[in-house]
Amino acid sequence: MTRRVYLDYNATAPLRDEARVAMIAAMDVVGNPSSVHAEGRRARALLEKARAQVAAALGADGAEVIFTSGATEAAGLALAGRGVSCAAIEHDAVRAWGDDALGVDELSAVTVPHPDRATLQIANSETGIVQALPEGLAVSDLTQGFGKLPFAFNWLGVEMGFISAHKIGGPKGVGALVMRRGTDIAAQIRGGGQEMGRRAGTENLIAIAGFGAAAEAAAKDLADGVWNSVSEIRNILEQALDAGASKTILVGKGTDRLPNTLCLATPGWKGETQVMQMDLAGFAISAGSACSSGKLRASAVLGAMGFDAATASGAIRVSLGPQTQKEDVLRFADAWLREYRRFAARAA
Amino acid sequence: MTRRVYLDYNATAPLRDEARVAMIAAMDVVGNPSSVHAEGRRARALLEKARAQVAAALGADGAEVIFTSGATEAAGLALAGRGVSCAAIEHDAVRAWGDDALGVDELSAVTVPHPDRATLQIANSETGIVQALPEGLAVSDLTQGFGKLPFAFNWLGVEMGFISAHKIGGPKGVGALVMRRGTDIAAQIRGGGQEMGRRAGTENLIAIAGFGAAAEAAAKDLADGVWNSVSEIRNILEQALDAGASKTILVGKGTDRLPNTLCLATPGWKGETQVMQMDLAGFAISAGSACSSGKLRASAVLGAMGFDAATASGAIRVSLGPQTQKEDVLRFADAWLREYRRFAARAA
Repeated sequence: MTRRVYLDYNATAPLRDEARVAMIAAMDVVGNPSSVHAEGRRARALLEKARAQVAAALGADGAEVIFTSGATEAAGLALAGRGVSCAAIEHDAVRAWGDDALGVDELSAVTVPHPDRATLQIANSETGIVQALPEGLAVSDLTQGFGKLPFAFNWLGVEMGFISAHKIGGPKGVGALVMRRGTDIAAQIRGGGQEMGRRAGTENLIAIAGFGAAAEAAAKDLADGVWNSVSEIRNILEQALDAGASKTILVGKGTDRLPNTLCLATPGWKGETQVMQMDLAGFAISAGSACSSGKLRASAVLGAMGFDAATASGAIRVSLGPQTQKEDVLRFADAWLREYRRFAARAA
Repeated sequence: MTRRVYLDYNATAPLRDEARVAMIAAMDVVGNPSSVHAEGRRARALLEKARAQVAAALGADGAEVIFTSGATEAAGLALAGRGVSCAAIEHDAVRAWGDDALGVDELSAVTVPHPDRATLQIANSETGIVQALPEGLAVSDLTQGFGKLPFAFNWLGVEMGFISAHKIGGPKGVGALVMRRGTDIAAQIRGGGQEMGRRAGTENLIAIAGFGAAAEAAAKDLADGVWNSVSEIRNILEQALDAGASKTILVGKGTDRLPNTLCLATPGWKGETQVMQMDLAGFAISAGSACSSGKLRASAVLGAMGFDAATASGAIRVSLGPQTQKEDVLRFADAWLREYRRFAARAA
């Protein structure tokens, strides 16, 4: 049996060694960070170390970093009750609090008439397409860009942003809201003074320690050019598929994209079918966002970009990581093209 | 230097070995539980195993267990917007959504005229006093009772309850809401179909695996009588302190209490001072709940029971765990009584 190839980094990345080591060390820290005794102070020191690591990786020195249970919770903390506009290409965790009113063109560019009353992602999880964030933007979903794109929160011109640890090799179940110091938000989870009164509840200390370590390591990787190498491998894959699949649309090709993401839409060949065929062949990919509990449907992202339902239903996402090798993507290209040719023969 | 003695289990318990092993194993599970490929299915299987372990430990087979980031989040999920009555002895995470309207007597018993519109804790974190939960109660904070008291959720006569992993030796940052099947609640954290639509966001898989293992181990300990031994050691400590501190009130003595908790109130000797004195002497204890970010103040719990401010400000909590030895509490009694005698001499 050949080993499986994981090409679903945008859904979740494997835990980094740096995060694992930090988490195992944190398991020995007994106290509650809110306790005033030595055990509590030691736990608090660990929490604040991780906060500084995340702030540094984000380019957010001096800004406030509030730990949450993930980007979804952080999106609600940033957006709930604010009546902020968004585009239909946003993640469901944003659309839950937005209005889908912002226009999206066929290259996925979003028009933002009033940035101070809008939220816009830095990059799309399905297509990888990067947005130009307008100055004065209220909120940005930085989840897919963090660790893969070189940016500093303090220079984005954005009031608030949010991120998730598990997309950069930290553990699932922890994320953060980052905001300019002095920004006023009301806690959603209440009943304790933790996180400067913005988020109650005993802190997820082991995961937060892993998040801090992963953020520090991810920032170093980015500076070292790791994602340039990922981008080269992604481009090799793209060329191989482009050469062999004339019915397939390479969504976002030629636009500014995440270095690791490839979105392929083949009208009439359902994305969910492709995911299952590739799973049987040993490859983990996805059709749309993973965040809807296995619910498979036409990509709302592609629909918003003007693709018809048959095309949007035929989309898959292949997302690479630093561990992905050139042989992995060439094996994937072979397996996928074999199924593509069967599909094309049936469709002919 | 003598080793430190941790007597603050009600704030947080050390991580159990069973939880550590399960968490380290879960670190190798790559997928997102919402992904349909083999890696995702493996992650989902781990999640559902932990859910079954927690349900079994709770005596909640057939009920719904919804994982949250802790008891504080679960309290909000159960209570937000419902206009439920509570007593002032509840944790701040409950009082944030309640009205403090329920009466509390001097033994901490709470009168609940309308159980279907009320929430009542199973046991108090500061005094350890156990409540008789009325049939048909809407919500109960089961956090301090879970794993220490023998109860089955299915036999409590309660619609919903909530618990935290880190009080039973699981990791911080994960908890659960448990409710009778078919109970209707609206998600607070939105934008994904996870947790049967009741709680969006990628699941905190490593911590949840630790929670499941801790719950299973805690239930076994309880059945094996571990807490009877803890209770005996607690009673030895109580007798030692009672014999040597005539100005000190042993709050809740003679009432139905958690097996591990001792609440001492010494009018005029501030609890926060005692915590710091004991910390310097090598013992971790607390004054009131840990959950208010190091904010020290008179215990609202003792105030609600009718104690005056000087007494309520003089309260400390000593809370034991399965690892606590008889020598630990005797050393604590010596150290505390030494400081008590100095206090009594100054006060005389």
